[in-house]
Amino acid sequence: MADRDDAPRSSSSASATSRQRRSRLAREPAIGAPPGTLVVDGAAGERCQIFVIDYCAEQVIEKELASIDEVVAYLEDDRASITWVDIRGLGDRHTLERMGEIFHVHPLALEDVVNVPQRPHSDPYLEQQVVISRMVQIAESGNVELEQLGILFGKGYVVTVQEEASRDCLESVRERIRRGKGGIRSAPADYLVYALLDAVIDGFYPVLEDLGERLEDLEIEAAAAPRGVSQKIHRIKRNLLDVRRAVWPQRDMVNGLLRDESAHISKETRVYLRDTYDHVVQVMDMVETFREIASGLMDLYLSGVSNRMNEIMKVLTVISTIFLPLTFIAGVYGMNFDTTASPYNLPELRWRYGYPFALGLMLLSVLVLLWFYRRKGWIGKASLPE
Amino acid sequence: MADRDDAPRSSSSASATSRQRRSRLAREPAIGAPPGTLVVDGAAGERCQIFVIDYCAEQVIEKELASIDEVVAYLEDDRASITWVDIRGLGDRHTLERMGEIFHVHPLALEDVVNVPQRPHSDPYLEQQVVISRMVQIAESGNVELEQLGILFGKGYVVTVQEEASRDCLESVRERIRRGKGGIRSAPADYLVYALLDAVIDGFYPVLEDLGERLEDLEIEAAAAPRGVSQKIHRIKRNLLDVRRAVWPQRDMVNGLLRDESAHISKETRVYLRDTYDHVVQVMDMVETFREIASGLMDLYLSGVSNRMNEIMKVLTVISTIFLPLTFIAGVYGMNFDTTASPYNLPELRWRYGYPFALGLMLLSVLVLLWFYRRKGWIGKASLPE
Amino acid sequence: MADRDDAPRSSSSASATSRQRRSRLAREPAIGAPPGTLVVDGAAGERCQIFVIDYCAEQVIEKELASIDEVVAYLEDDRASITWVDIRGLGDRHTLERMGEIFHVHPLALEDVVNVPQRPHSDPYLEQQVVISRMVQIAESGNVELEQLGILFGKGYVVTVQEEASRDCLESVRERIRRGKGGIRSAPADYLVYALLDAVIDGFYPVLEDLGERLEDLEIEAAAAPRGVSQKIHRIKRNLLDVRRAVWPQRDMVNGLLRDESAHISKETRVYLRDTYDHVVQVMDMVETFREIASGLMDLYLSGVSNRMNEIMKVLTVISTIFLPLTFIAGVYGMNFDTTASPYNLPELRWRYGYPFALGLMLLSVLVLLWFYRRKGWIGKASLPE
Amino acid sequence: MADRDDAPRSSSSASATSRQRRSRLAREPAIGAPPGTLVVDGAAGERCQIFVIDYCAEQVIEKELASIDEVVAYLEDDRASITWVDIRGLGDRHTLERMGEIFHVHPLALEDVVNVPQRPHSDPYLEQQVVISRMVQIAESGNVELEQLGILFGKGYVVTVQEEASRDCLESVRERIRRGKGGIRSAPADYLVYALLDAVIDGFYPVLEDLGERLEDLEIEAAAAPRGVSQKIHRIKRNLLDVRRAVWPQRDMVNGLLRDESAHISKETRVYLRDTYDHVVQVMDMVETFREIASGLMDLYLSGVSNRMNEIMKVLTVISTIFLPLTFIAGVYGMNFDTTASPYNLPELRWRYGYPFALGLMLLSVLVLLWFYRRKGWIGKASLPE
Amino acid sequence: MADRDDAPRSSSSASATSRQRRSRLAREPAIGAPPGTLVVDGAAGERCQIFVIDYCAEQVIEKELASIDEVVAYLEDDRASITWVDIRGLGDRHTLERMGEIFHVHPLALEDVVNVPQRPHSDPYLEQQVVISRMVQIAESGNVELEQLGILFGKGYVVTVQEEASRDCLESVRERIRRGKGGIRSAPADYLVYALLDAVIDGFYPVLEDLGERLEDLEIEAAAAPRGVSQKIHRIKRNLLDVRRAVWPQRDMVNGLLRDESAHISKETRVYLRDTYDHVVQVMDMVETFREIASGLMDLYLSGVSNRMNEIMKVLTVISTIFLPLTFIAGVYGMNFDTTASPYNLPELRWRYGYPFALGLMLLSVLVLLWFYRRKGWIGKASLPE
Repeated sequence: MADRDDAPRSSSSASATSRQRRSRLAREPAIGAPPGTLVVDGAAGERCQIFVIDYCAEQVIEKELASIDEVVAYLEDDRASITWVDIRGLGDRHTLERMGEIFHVHPLALEDVVNVPQRPHSDPYLEQQVVISRMVQIAESGNVELEQLGILFGKGYVVTVQEEASRDCLESVRERIRRGKGGIRSAPADYLVYALLDAVIDGFYPVLEDLGERLEDLEIEAAAAPRGVSQKIHRIKRNLLDVRRAVWPQRDMVNGLLRDESAHISKETRVYLRDTYDHVVQVMDMVETFREIASGLMDLYLSGVSNRMNEIMKVLTVISTIFLPLTFIAGVYGMNFDTTASPYNLPELRWRYGYPFALGLMLLSVLVLLWFYRRKGWIGKASLPE
Repeated sequence: MADRDDAPRSSSSASATSRQRRSRLAREPAIGAPPGTLVVDGAAGERCQIFVIDYCAEQVIEKELASIDEVVAYLEDDRASITWVDIRGLGDRHTLERMGEIFHVHPLALEDVVNVPQRPHSDPYLEQQVVISRMVQIAESGNVELEQLGILFGKGYVVTVQEEASRDCLESVRERIRRGKGGIRSAPADYLVYALLDAVIDGFYPVLEDLGERLEDLEIEAAAAPRGVSQKIHRIKRNLLDVRRAVWPQRDMVNGLLRDESAHISKETRVYLRDTYDHVVQVMDMVETFREIASGLMDLYLSGVSNRMNEIMKVLTVISTIFLPLTFIAGVYGMNFDTTASPYNLPELRWRYGYPFALGLMLLSVLVLLWFYRRKGWIGKASLPE
Repeated sequence: MADRDDAPRSSSSASATSRQRRSRLAREPAIGAPPGTLVVDGAAGERCQIFVIDYCAEQVIEKELASIDEVVAYLEDDRASITWVDIRGLGDRHTLERMGEIFHVHPLALEDVVNVPQRPHSDPYLEQQVVISRMVQIAESGNVELEQLGILFGKGYVVTVQEEASRDCLESVRERIRRGKGGIRSAPADYLVYALLDAVIDGFYPVLEDLGERLEDLEIEAAAAPRGVSQKIHRIKRNLLDVRRAVWPQRDMVNGLLRDESAHISKETRVYLRDTYDHVVQVMDMVETFREIASGLMDLYLSGVSNRMNEIMKVLTVISTIFLPLTFIAGVYGMNFDTTASPYNLPELRWRYGYPFALGLMLLSVLVLLWFYRRKGWIGKASLPE
Repeated sequence: MADRDDAPRSSSSASATSRQRRSRLAREPAIGAPPGTLVVDGAAGERCQIFVIDYCAEQVIEKELASIDEVVAYLEDDRASITWVDIRGLGDRHTLERMGEIFHVHPLALEDVVNVPQRPHSDPYLEQQVVISRMVQIAESGNVELEQLGILFGKGYVVTVQEEASRDCLESVRERIRRGKGGIRSAPADYLVYALLDAVIDGFYPVLEDLGERLEDLEIEAAAAPRGVSQKIHRIKRNLLDVRRAVWPQRDMVNGLLRDESAHISKETRVYLRDTYDHVVQVMDMVETFREIASGLMDLYLSGVSNRMNEIMKVLTVISTIFLPLTFIAGVYGMNFDTTASPYNLPELRWRYGYPFALGLMLLSVLVLLWFYRRKGWIGKASLPE
Repeated sequence: MADRDDAPRSSSSASATSRQRRSRLAREPAIGAPPGTLVVDGAAGERCQIFVIDYCAEQVIEKELASIDEVVAYLEDDRASITWVDIRGLGDRHTLERMGEIFHVHPLALEDVVNVPQRPHSDPYLEQQVVISRMVQIAESGNVELEQLGILFGKGYVVTVQEEASRDCLESVRERIRRGKGGIRSAPADYLVYALLDAVIDGFYPVLEDLGERLEDLEIEAAAAPRGVSQKIHRIKRNLLDVRRAVWPQRDMVNGLLRDESAHISKETRVYLRDTYDHVVQVMDMVETFREIASGLMDLYLSGVSNRMNEIMKVLTVISTIFLPLTFIAGVYGMNFDTTASPYNLPELRWRYGYPFALGLMLLSVLVLLWFYRRKGWIGKASLPE
């Protein structure tokens, strides 16, 4: 009931110009395209990289494949081994479609895995289970980067599909398989899926630690309220929103795997997934706590800005109001009334101590104002430059 | 138990003057009108456009009908074909009532479909299921525009009723039927309903992308805090509220279709609706994330405004307090004390270097204040015009 | 187990002085009064108005009764007709108590109906069901006014008890009965209850439209941030809180009628109540949306106030800092240094072009500052009066 | 498994110095004390007051007891009567422990009743039910005061334990028993419990009315934004938080009594408790509404403060900028350029109408600025003192 | 399926430099490490302290062990006694691993107990139950410090694992065992677990009392709005977030113990846990209330800052605008118009009472402005220094 055509090309090339935006919203096929339509940006010319790890308790075979068709050999030769096919990059329509055929993937499952980003979730199908997860890392720009990890698994095989060819957080799982640590080599395929999900969730911790450190640095900065702090806080909030949007549905997803009476996950593995579930919830707790801290920082910053404004106004007020009376007194004795015309006209000008008298008047006005401001607490040690 | 009379005419003509408002609230019949009362604005003289697409695996007939009565032929001739009747515009009472009779529509179902806007929901009736959905698009004004799509379907037929005749997001579905792609032509009527709902939900993505782009533009603007940004943020928030109000009930609606043991939806179609459900939830996630970003932007903007105020105050303070002492010194030496009356009266005026001494005094006061402000960090590279 | 005494008279007369407040809180009997105590403000001397509409498919009898006892005749004469007794006003203890006796009302049900306001809810009793609802309208002051509508119904009769005698939103239902529209005359009593509740909920729409229009008007005002807008926004928020407090429990109430296996509501009527439920939820959606808009407006207003402050400060800063240097220069050349005492004392005063030189100096300082402010973007077209 | 020792004396005497705080947090035994440890502040020397009301349909005996042991007689003499033992004050360890023995109270139930404050809840035990409730009143300071009411009841008896000996809101229930109103004398013990809980909940209404009145007063004050309003709003918010913390768990408590299949509450009493439940929910609604209003008031107040700042700034700006040009012009004609040295040096000084010309110049500058400010809307009727 | 290797050494030594951060996030093994990997910071050289209390109704043995192996003797000798092994400090890998072997601990359970912090939760395993809890105390810095308490228990034994060797809140439980109070010595192991959890929860009360006192102090400070209050409020908010993050999952944890049909907890103990559950909920209520108060304080503080700004602006405005007209008048009579050239040129200068006239003019302008400001309410008793 699904077709795989090349129709939505125009839509995908249009969206190619808005790369970073697409990474936030969904790479959807053209509106109303039939279910199972794969949105592959063929023009980009990217190829998929295909890695296979075939292992059993006794041995491990690890190889990069030139074509997806080579995987059939691994699936068929020995049913006792687990075959983990790791496809990186979504640029090659043929590989992805052929993978769908080899593993008998339901069109909707294939669409979920290929048309990124999908909301993390897990759906059981007859022959296999599809799990959509989200990996996280800090990009060089300091922002959080999310990448989809699609997992298809059934009896004896696990297929993972990653957005980007570059780096992932699954290397540790590969290492465990190579070194045969932790019994992973003698466990069934669903245990490998648990190991992958656990590695994905563990990947959130360093990202949150990074954000936590930045929050702590901002905590010190915020009180001083320099320019630009509000943008930094805003950026962290946005990153936290991104992480939150990635981690909330993963909780439902892991919970679904735990609870559903799926035939693809054994009871033994569920015990381990319970642990993963606890970790997802812990990550969510942290994200929410960080979000509250970031909101509090914004308040702190705004109160810092208001305090600085108060400081500026105090300086203006103190200096202005001290000099205004002085200038006024000087102005009075600068008036040109004719002192010869009458004894009432500025007699001070001819006093012997007229000038000292005027200076004394000025001094007095300064002292009165200083006393006033000190009583108000506006001047003192605090208002001097530290 | 329902009647279809022309009583509420006065109510509808009154509300005709407040068009855009009505589109936000409900086009309700007069208070207490019997259920099933159709509110049709007959004065407007609008006619409905009626399109029919009758298809089966072998052939497709597509035609615009002059009268709703012609549809009977399509329904009767061949039970194996699916008949999709698409009515656009709600201005013709006769057509709508006749449609109700032809398809044996329950009065409440007919009211839901005709009296827009209703809250998106889905109700099963004996012979058919009614689904109320909401289509979204960006109007030329840049605001989000919502339009109701009512769907009535039963065995072998689907009736869609749209508010406006102009444009919709269902063209892609028609195209799939015409080209016979994706197996839609051999699927039953409920699969067509799924295809329509999926197209409707997919229609939210470009709208959210547009809002997302505007938010990103505002993110850059907000820090500079020019006038008018707050209105722009407010407008986006309102649009997001509109989208949210459209999408939240659609989640319940799709979920209802998924869960209810409705006789009108087959188990195969439910698998596809599960996918639609994931998309609705993803849209909701985006809306909530955008709403949080918009709130954060408002904070950012307000902190920008405060920062600018600080900047202005600093300039005022620095310039005022530098010139006040200068003016005061000038004022002192502008006093008219009689220097001949006593040697204490402004002896500086007769000094050889009296004027340079006064200028030196002024320079000193400027330097002291500049040093003070630089220590406070008020002047420096940052406070000069960039 | 209930008594109806005249004890709480003092409490009710005390509360008579705080009328508008009582309408917000509950007209409760004295603390610890036995259940079923009726709080009737006998001193007010108000009488109840009693209207009866007795109808069946063939005929309608509508009459105002002088005494509640007359109603017995309508109840007994013909069991096939539906008797709707409409009591308006709560000032007549005898009538209310007698009504309780005639219809065998449980003391708690009678208390709920008489001691307003009660939280909207619905309780089944053996012989009848009691429904407490809330009607809404815009008072002349522009504020929302809530009035309780108590409904008691059983086989063949419906008793409604309204707080105020004046006006209600049930006239349309009476009209439908009189004109026999919509099959209401041949439906059982619970259908009349549905019709009443539907009319009550429909009565929320014009109120919300009014509030919506006021919000839109404020949206335009808020940006200009004149005084008094914050109070207007606050008043709308309070009205929305009142509406919300009225509508939230009505949802539970309608839902309760829908779900409960009450013997008093037939399956056919439930289908109609489902429609009413959708409308209540739509009203709630609108209220929540309006509340969010109102909150956004407050932010918009505050940012407008800040912007205006910035504007004022800019004018002060620009004008002050332009004139301060000018005044200083004038002050310098107003100093009285003895130009005859030395060539260093203000030689400019005796220059041929001394005055033009001073004016030139002033012009220069103005130009420098104007250039500075234009670079900062403080002056330009935007800062001039529009 | 519980012991009642005098160990935590030190802890309780320490906490005696922080009376008002203890009333907010819990009077807990020393950390890790065994369950059932009673925290009695023996040093305070307070005694309990013990009142007993023993009633049946025919007679009422009301008496203050000297010792808790006297109660045994009432319990045993006649099983048909209901014995209500009302203990006021928590200062007498012996009485409380003895009461525990007489009524066979589970140690945990006794701890709940004695160690105040506990969270309102209700727990069924084998022989009796314990209900912890919270009474509220307005203290003389105007703040809300909460007091715990512990209720233990079983067949034929009700024991109430109050924190303070002084006043309570249960007098009306006693009066009903004395006067035999409302059938309370012929009802079982659980009906008395309902009557007590209903009186407790009714006691919230006058408190909320008081807070509501204060909010309304503040509503008028807030717009004028005098100092101290923010503290008043904050105080009301705190009081509302206190009420909320008291009423939320009471809802769960009443709901628990309603739903639990407790053997201690009869079906008839449940009907009455349903009414109490509606009242608790109504109180909660009010508290939440008041909290929202109080939050809105804070916004209103802050906008009032900002408006006043604008007002002040306008006055400063208008007056400053009007006088600055004037002073400048005066300064120019106060310069001492030698008018004899050249015709370019201040020729105005020797003009016949030089002084009027200068005055005219000043007037012109004033008019220009006034026109400017009027166009900006800064001056007019609104900015004059009212 | 788990291995215990020394691989993640590098990760743990890296994180040793960021001590306080680690205490906030989780001490996780390297990403993707197999489940059950213990993260032990061997380089730190810390040793575990091991205490054992073996008790039955008749006797108590309390001892510090040199090696975990000695515990086997206590477990085996007498099955009727309860053995409580208390391990403090997480620095000794061997001890922790050996403990895992002795008690047959599931790798995931061991990981939960050792790799701190884990989210509080409780998981049943076949032979034992693991409970992760969080203890709280106020550090010397005044901040809240959280420490994990892991509890493993089965038939006849309880193992507790604490993060830090120093101090805990369990001493009171030990004292109860030593003195045989409250029947703890004759109760089974799960009752000891209840006693430990109850002590942990009781430990939250003094912390909250401390925070409550600080909030009350800040309440007085906030209105005066001195600098630094916002930081203090922020710090309390952060502490409350920490407490909240510790206490929320504990509610679920205790609830889980209450509800789960775990074989490790007897029905009798559940009654006591119900009491603990009430306490956890009470702590949560307090935390939420405190959080609301802290938010309110921030508003109070910001309104205080705004009020102070108003105060400053008023002083500036009053003083500036009083002296500006004075200076202007003085300036006018300082102009040098040639009074001999025309009778229109400043005739006042030659008046007999010219100077008194000028002074009178100044006095008048002062009086007018004072009257204006008094009418506006800007000056009066309130604006003078208190």
